[in-house]
Formats: sequence, structure tokens, C-alpha cells
Amino acid sequence: MMDKKKTKAFLRLENTLSRDRLSVGDEFFELLLKDAEKFLSEYAELVGYPEINVEKKSGKFEITITASATRLKNAYSGEKTL
Amino acid sequence: MMDKKKTKAFLRLENTLSRDRLSVGDEFFELLLKDAEKFLSEYAELVGYPEINVEKKSGKFEITITASATRLKNAYSGEKTL
Repeated sequence: MMDKKKTKAFLRLENTLSRDRLSVGDEFFELLLKDAEKFLSEYAELVGYPEINVEKKSGKFEITITASATRLKNAYSGEKTL
Repeated sequence: MMDKKKTKAFLRLENTLSRDRLSVGDEFFELLLKDAEKFLSEYAELVGYPEINVEKKSGKFEITITASATRLKNAYSGEKTL
């Protein structure tokens, strides 16, 4: 789970390490993180940034996104952040 | 991680149980799952559906999305599914 002490810079460093390991482009994790936050913010009031982890196992990529939120939004009613 | 044997119907049942526990609207998990698949498909060639778990802990909601993919897409180059 997201550690509050993790800054955006620290996340970027982690992403750089993952990126090199997985042979993806420069901005892969930055865009993924930005999009994940945007996407999840429609459903929940997030605390900080989501955390993204991608592991390669037996030729497959296991993607995990974790986020902490203070509340869930009722997507059905079309509720959006004020 | 996503179990290949989990059908869409099974995921829906799981979502119903979670939904009741978390007091969210009827379509909360269905929309979240659909959006998560759409969002992640821009970054990876997914195997089946993502799996979504939301737990309430100490007044906060911990959201976890896991997905399995055969390959990652290079988002930076604007690559899209053919």
C-alpha cells in the first residue's frame, strides 16, 4: 500500500527502475500513473498517488495498482469531484 | 491475481458482495471494472478481466486492481490496439 512518505520523486525513481527492467518507453510509468490517478479519482477520493507495480513472471506481466481513499464516489449517479 | 477460471459472472457476484459491504451504488463495481479494463488496455494486452478489490480499513478504503497481460504497450509512442 501507498506509504505516505513516498514522494512523487521517489515514485518516479521506482518507476525508472521498473521501466529499465521491463523494456518500456521513457514515459510508460509516468503516463500510467497519471492515468491511473485520473481514472480512480472518478470513483474515489484518493489519498496521494496510486502505487503501480509490474512484475514479469513466466513470460506474463502482472500489473498491480493500489490506492488509498477517504471515500468512494457513487459512479452510478454520475457524481464528480467538486 | 486473476484466476483464469473466474468468469465474468463470478466476478459480478464477487462485486455484488463487495458492493453491499461498502454501501456503494448498484453499478459501482461494474463501471469500475469496465473502466479499469479500458484504461489498462491502453497500456497492456490484457489476459481476461482485471480483478478489483476494495477493503475498508481504519476508516479508509484500500483499492487494489490486478491484471495479467501478455505484453506491455509503449504508451509514449501512442501505440494502440490494432
